Amino acid sequence: MDFRPILYVMGMLLCLLAVGMTVPMLVDLYYDHDDWKVFFLSICICTFFGGTLILSNAGCTNESLNIRQAFVLTASGWLVMATFGAMPLWHSVADLSFTDAFFEATSAITTTGSTVMVGLDTSPPGILLWRSILQAFGGIGFIVMALTILPFLKVGGMQLFQTESSDKSDKALPRIRQNALAIAYIYMFLVTWCAMTFWFCGMTGFDALNHAMTSIATGGLSTHDASFAFFKNPLLEWTGTFFMILGALPFVLFIRMGKGEWKHVFHNSQARAFLKFLAITIVLLSAWLSIAHGRPFGEALRSVSFNVVSVVTTTGFMSEDYTLWGPFAVGVFFILTFVGGCTGSTSGGTKIMRFQVMWSVFKRQMFRLVHPHGVFPITYEGKSVSEETLFSVIVYIFALLLSFAALSIILAFFGLDLITSVSGAATALTNVGPGLGPIIGPAGNFSTLPDGAKWALSFGMVLGRLELLTLLVLFSPYLWRR
Amino acid sequence: MDFRPILYVMGMLLCLLAVGMTVPMLVDLYYDHDDWKVFFLSICICTFFGGTLILSNAGCTNESLNIRQAFVLTASGWLVMATFGAMPLWHSVADLSFTDAFFEATSAITTTGSTVMVGLDTSPPGILLWRSILQAFGGIGFIVMALTILPFLKVGGMQLFQTESSDKSDKALPRIRQNALAIAYIYMFLVTWCAMTFWFCGMTGFDALNHAMTSIATGGLSTHDASFAFFKNPLLEWTGTFFMILGALPFVLFIRMGKGEWKHVFHNSQARAFLKFLAITIVLLSAWLSIAHGRPFGEALRSVSFNVVSVVTTTGFMSEDYTLWGPFAVGVFFILTFVGGCTGSTSGGTKIMRFQVMWSVFKRQMFRLVHPHGVFPITYEGKSVSEETLFSVIVYIFALLLSFAALSIILAFFGLDLITSVSGAATALTNVGPGLGPIIGPAGNFSTLPDGAKWALSFGMVLGRLELLTLLVLFSPYLWRR
Repeated sequence: MDFRPILYVMGMLLCLLAVGMTVPMLVDLYYDHDDWKVFFLSICICTFFGGTLILSNAGCTNESLNIRQAFVLTASGWLVMATFGAMPLWHSVADLSFTDAFFEATSAITTTGSTVMVGLDTSPPGILLWRSILQAFGGIGFIVMALTILPFLKVGGMQLFQTESSDKSDKALPRIRQNALAIAYIYMFLVTWCAMTFWFCGMTGFDALNHAMTSIATGGLSTHDASFAFFKNPLLEWTGTFFMILGALPFVLFIRMGKGEWKHVFHNSQARAFLKFLAITIVLLSAWLSIAHGRPFGEALRSVSFNVVSVVTTTGFMSEDYTLWGPFAVGVFFILTFVGGCTGSTSGGTKIMRFQVMWSVFKRQMFRLVHPHGVFPITYEGKSVSEETLFSVIVYIFALLLSFAALSIILAFFGLDLITSVSGAATALTNVGPGLGPIIGPAGNFSTLPDGAKWALSFGMVLGRLELLTLLVLFSPYLWRR
Repeated sequence: MDFRPILYVMGMLLCLLAVGMTVPMLVDLYYDHDDWKVFFLSICICTFFGGTLILSNAGCTNESLNIRQAFVLTASGWLVMATFGAMPLWHSVADLSFTDAFFEATSAITTTGSTVMVGLDTSPPGILLWRSILQAFGGIGFIVMALTILPFLKVGGMQLFQTESSDKSDKALPRIRQNALAIAYIYMFLVTWCAMTFWFCGMTGFDALNHAMTSIATGGLSTHDASFAFFKNPLLEWTGTFFMILGALPFVLFIRMGKGEWKHVFHNSQARAFLKFLAITIVLLSAWLSIAHGRPFGEALRSVSFNVVSVVTTTGFMSEDYTLWGPFAVGVFFILTFVGGCTGSTSGGTKIMRFQVMWSVFKRQMFRLVHPHGVFPITYEGKSVSEETLFSVIVYIFALLLSFAALSIILAFFGLDLITSVSGAATALTNVGPGLGPIIGPAGNFSTLPDGAKWALSFGMVLGRLELLTLLVLFSPYLWRR
């Protein structure tokens, strides 16, 4: 395998990371905080490694990647971003161990939002901003990957979104570059809109910017230990709910809106199913909360909306500790952890498209049981779905199950109780953020977990963010065998 | 739909039930216990309904069933057995409510083994024997269903075991009758062998007979509240382990042994994979238990063997409270709940064959990711597996997931904590028996659950025993629409 184009792209990613680090450096300089030195040092290191990789591999790049290279590049790209993104966290005043810094950076870049940092409210601004910027990077990166690389790699049924130009392997790099720019523009527009709205609704400018970056990225890192509960502001909760939903809609909708293709926007079956699912879940759970706990319905609706949307979009903010609503709410939130938003958004989890496809497979099987020789074609958004695509979706779900079982067992091996290990495995693989139980629940924190569990969870987050198969294939002999 | 053949078979099942009830009646008469009247009354009722159904539908039976009739017959057969089987429990001195009696009978006939009865050690012999006989009936019934009806209905990939004679729908009834007798003979031989061995190893004759019936049925109901822990006899634990494994092996192996076809026996890939899986799990967990808890390895091996085999074969006996081994063991046992034994045995759960098939699908997908145009045929025991069979297996697993999620939520709705509701849903659907946590754990009991939860669990047990699809299809419009 020719690793040069892979190393070249990694060099570019490192330089991008260095550019990102200048912002928190300048902020810390402005507030006269010593952490600017840490950022400066990190920038030097990233630029050095990045520059070296670019220069030493620049001449060799012929802009074409084969499938094997694309897999290796995709997986190692995320690992490099997490590792180098952890540097400022490691050496900052937050005084994290390398394990903690890597966990926090991985949680940020994969837009998970689990945190090991305590005392966020008094943390220096640079480090808080860096976590948010990492999530924004992760969000853009994932959309670029979902729209340009995964359809070409045929991972998890994403070939459903293959465009004519995306099935040519030798055009991968130019296509990515060209699309990435358009995605970044729209993404920045959304973040700006969100930040302005948050600011207008009562956040400070700094909080607004940070929460806007982590909302659109459906990441969920906050600048306060209490997350959104810190603000005690109903208007902000509704605003947050709205922007988290935006972050979990298919990004292609915004591209189409920009082109004025409104018909396509309103007929997107995934977005419709997603909104319908949210509406039903929220209304039922609010009614239950209102009846069972005597809450006024309006208040119940707001709190349920925010927290359900936060978990389903895999953001992971919280406006109150919903585990105090009792076992039924805990059960519901546990199941919701697996759902996820729409494909081609920043959200993680199984995602609505895969449920739609599996539901069709289920219906077809029911039909076949009664009509063994009947024909039941499966279509998605008007196009017929190939058996190969069905298997691609199925194996994704099967891999999620196996990974979930394996990660739960590994976490239990490190001595975590059943709820912590099971919900921890789920929340890492689906990139949601908070788990359940007293330790890692919405009011809790991952800092007290043993180091082994943190590494396992970090691996789980990357595995989830890479839609499982993209990472698992690296462990398969088929990739390395000639 | 012509319901007459369905009602006819149900009549026969009820008469069979009445025959079964004569044994505990005679035992209670012998021990001069008043419950014999309850059994006598139940026999009268079963015979009356059974006889009426047979006589009124006998002339109309033309011995051919279409697919729709076969589905309705299979599902309603189990429900009728559970309902009428509950009668003696309802009115006996055990003084169960109707909910409890139905739960107990369902748990018995589905060979689950969850119990709501406390004080088994002092219960009258008739009622204890009746629970065991119901499990034996359930065991034979399930094997007959798995070998003759499910391949024909193509449920859960069981068409892999289609023989030439089983794909003709109009021969369903005669084939079932002819096979059922052979199965019953071998089954009775196994139970007798097991009972003699248990007796020889130190059980009383009564205990030996009861535990033999519930071991081979991989059911797990005991005549003592403490289950196998009551005996405190290492030899008995090893014996129990052996017979539970026998109960979870493909029944066809015993038929082949009877015919002297030893080559087929040793080359059965499912049985080999099952034993390999057990061996690896047991050795690893014993080593862990020995190291982490300082137990002598021999003792750890015995206890781990018994309890792992009990859960994997979906029997549900216990020789000690393994949840006291800490969170890692709890996590492992939770995952093991889903595994199950071999298809065509009395055990429930996902079953080894489906894991083998899914593993092949997974490997093929890994291969296809790297070789998009490569061919990767899937075979099972030397025969190639059709795409249709693959989907049949896949939809089974998907249905198990959805049922598990739905049942967990329903149990949580009745106020059960997360561990109780999640492990309760799992243990009901896989017909294992004990759950986890302080209430329904291996040392616990289902008696204190709210009635709603008991009904939900009863439904879950029947759903699991019917391999999900056989019951779910009754709720599909395709079955009832012309």
